Amino acid sequence: MSKESTRTILLETGRQLFLARGYSSTGIEAVVQAAGVPKGSFYYYFGSKEEFGLQVLDRFAEEVRANFERCLGDTSVTPIGRFRRYFEEVCVRLESQECRTGCLVGNLSQEMAAQSEAFRIRLEEIFGGIIDRYVEGLKVAEKAGEIAPGQDLRALAEFCLSSWQGAILRAKTARSTRPIRTFIDIVFESLLTMPVKAVAESKT
Amino acid sequence: MSKESTRTILLETGRQLFLARGYSSTGIEAVVQAAGVPKGSFYYYFGSKEEFGLQVLDRFAEEVRANFERCLGDTSVTPIGRFRRYFEEVCVRLESQECRTGCLVGNLSQEMAAQSEAFRIRLEEIFGGIIDRYVEGLKVAEKAGEIAPGQDLRALAEFCLSSWQGAILRAKTARSTRPIRTFIDIVFESLLTMPVKAVAESKT
Repeated sequence: MSKESTRTILLETGRQLFLARGYSSTGIEAVVQAAGVPKGSFYYYFGSKEEFGLQVLDRFAEEVRANFERCLGDTSVTPIGRFRRYFEEVCVRLESQECRTGCLVGNLSQEMAAQSEAFRIRLEEIFGGIIDRYVEGLKVAEKAGEIAPGQDLRALAEFCLSSWQGAILRAKTARSTRPIRTFIDIVFESLLTMPVKAVAESKT
Repeated sequence: MSKESTRTILLETGRQLFLARGYSSTGIEAVVQAAGVPKGSFYYYFGSKEEFGLQVLDRFAEEVRANFERCLGDTSVTPIGRFRRYFEEVCVRLESQECRTGCLVGNLSQEMAAQSEAFRIRLEEIFGGIIDRYVEGLKVAEKAGEIAPGQDLRALAEFCLSSWQGAILRAKTARSTRPIRTFIDIVFESLLTMPVKAVAESKT
């Protein structure tokens, strides 16, 4: 097995275990056993569990970004349709897992934001990057006349991202994509079609 | 110490520890030590950690319900203003804790929905009860002419609850109530003032 593939197998195994059981409940021992590699290999690639966890998170976030870019790059659909397609694709993916796993970024935010400053900062950077990308996507839709002009696109993007994370969370207890479909319907059939007043205080 | 107060101290200690560290990372040993009661007392009141956890959750949910009822019962404010006040009150409370703890119902949904069917079912019951109450509150606002008539109030209530949980989650990584204030602004200044189309499929 090449060095790179061992590292990738460890990261992929970490992702699956973190999604299934959470970060705290997943020991390094469990990761190397499930990955079928000797424990020494783990420490060859990763200095600590936290370093490993952050790399698992980065890899997941990179995939989210790539999927979002792919959807936004599909010019055969209108700008708002591209945006919507991303959420619909994730909905299908979550349905295939009976909505058990959720989103690793949301899961780790819930579990680790108060426990580890390193995780909190990385998670906040990831959310910030997603919001920036949402804003760009919304600007294109605004220019195309698909959403009402003059809206506070950053507040709207922040709200969409929070609401999306909340819908994925609710899908876990509902064991159904119903909350996610409600999110898609309300955001794309109502919210994005009407003006949102400027949010007075959008910085803290 | 009376029996009832020992039980209450254990439940309150559990709530604080679950909010700070999560359920899985909190052992019974840590609970009895922090509560300052002998371990035997724990098993006098609770058959297992899960039974204890469910009672901690119920107690938290009961408080959420009571706070919501209190806000909705304040007829010195308009129906939609009562609804809004509940979220503003929680925002102030979370700010006082630097948004570290979040909501126990949301936290346990994230952590336990896939791990324990007993938790998942109880959490879903709690969410269902909150949505029912949101719908009643929205109906009163609709009758008072504060929100556009003919909306799918259940879909709207479901969306508000998911979005609220998402905003609390985001506040944890932002270590700021900004996402919560954005939620309040968009929901109460825009979303609830315009028609939401009926959600085609609101049952699964």
